[in-house]
Amino acid sequence: MKITILGTGMVGQTVASKLFKLGHIVTMGTRNPEETKQRTQANQITGESFSDWFKKQEGIKLTNLEESALEADFVINATSGQASIDVLKKVGEANLSGKVLLDIANPLDFSQGMPPSLFVSNTDSLGEQIQKEFPELKVVKSLNTMNMLIMMNPESIPGNHNVFVSGNDANAKEKVSGLLKSIGWKQENIIDLGDITTARGTEMLLPIWLRLWTALGHANFNFHIQQSK
Amino acid sequence: MKITILGTGMVGQTVASKLFKLGHIVTMGTRNPEETKQRTQANQITGESFSDWFKKQEGIKLTNLEESALEADFVINATSGQASIDVLKKVGEANLSGKVLLDIANPLDFSQGMPPSLFVSNTDSLGEQIQKEFPELKVVKSLNTMNMLIMMNPESIPGNHNVFVSGNDANAKEKVSGLLKSIGWKQENIIDLGDITTARGTEMLLPIWLRLWTALGHANFNFHIQQSK
Repeated sequence: MKITILGTGMVGQTVASKLFKLGHIVTMGTRNPEETKQRTQANQITGESFSDWFKKQEGIKLTNLEESALEADFVINATSGQASIDVLKKVGEANLSGKVLLDIANPLDFSQGMPPSLFVSNTDSLGEQIQKEFPELKVVKSLNTMNMLIMMNPESIPGNHNVFVSGNDANAKEKVSGLLKSIGWKQENIIDLGDITTARGTEMLLPIWLRLWTALGHANFNFHIQQSK
Repeated sequence: MKITILGTGMVGQTVASKLFKLGHIVTMGTRNPEETKQRTQANQITGESFSDWFKKQEGIKLTNLEESALEADFVINATSGQASIDVLKKVGEANLSGKVLLDIANPLDFSQGMPPSLFVSNTDSLGEQIQKEFPELKVVKSLNTMNMLIMMNPESIPGNHNVFVSGNDANAKEKVSGLLKSIGWKQENIIDLGDITTARGTEMLLPIWLRLWTALGHANFNFHIQQSK
């Protein structure tokens, strides 16, 4: 597929590398491609800058937001939650119309310090806000409940653990589930929670995720729904 | 121990029966014991009324709130979230001072229909509100992330699954963990998240819990944090 990834941070990079390796035509969208290519600030986890990372990628395209989704079959929102709607507006409603958006962003609010709270929650969600702003876009919330390495490499956690899917369009959810399976997620571990309002549930997992990170001392964990047979 | 359970609903009944079977001296506190004993409305899950349930209990005491915690070593809040602080005020700050409160209530708001939202979340929690209102009470939030049958019978779900503990007082958390182990929770499955502010994380699990209940079609599940070794 022709996949456009919005966001050039660590999550965007991890997703882009993996999907390119899987054989997709990958385009990353950013406000100013020339400026992004020159970013030399090392990221906190890999220690690598976007500039150094991008030099090693052969075949991943970097374009401005306006052009990024023109040919896309599939769009992934890997921007920060606070930037998401603004970025999508720059991509352009007409360019997004009818397409599937896999939304992996979380509405984290760092303005009050650590751990972040959520800038929308409980009676609304970022997934719903995006769907409301772009009614012709088929928003599917998924993958937002774990660290980026597990998202793209579920085998890094032993045993069964879950990925959740929320969205209004059944075909769009099927397309996302197909992509998840190609990444390595087992069908039995993909839980369809229902319509996009169920994104409230997965976005509200972030507060315990952040506290587990502190309590366990690492981020190599994921939620598993353990059921009685 | 002498354990006082506040709340006579399904959760209170399930907790009381189990702890009585484990050999504790169990008192249930309610606003009007005579009225409570005459409740004939069947509950939604067991189909049994409080009146019928209570007739079968030999040895569990039922008292008014003011007297309920006088001799208690340990108090459990199994009231509805919206009633919790009012009920604790009626129990009396002096009667609670210095005691451990295991808070299993959730701040569910049913006023906007189903599924309920939370009346406090994100930057505060019911656990914190109780701790703030009763500074001399040692509040430990736990068991609020699963159905009542799993709380008191963790073996009903196969394999490993977790119970979380949040609270400011290390000794109080140890006392709660000891009770959890006596109920059947394995030490390795008890996760201490940190101070009482971490109750935000566990209370905010309710929105996904409610949606999983719908998506899976049953409530016989619990969260497990699957980690890489």
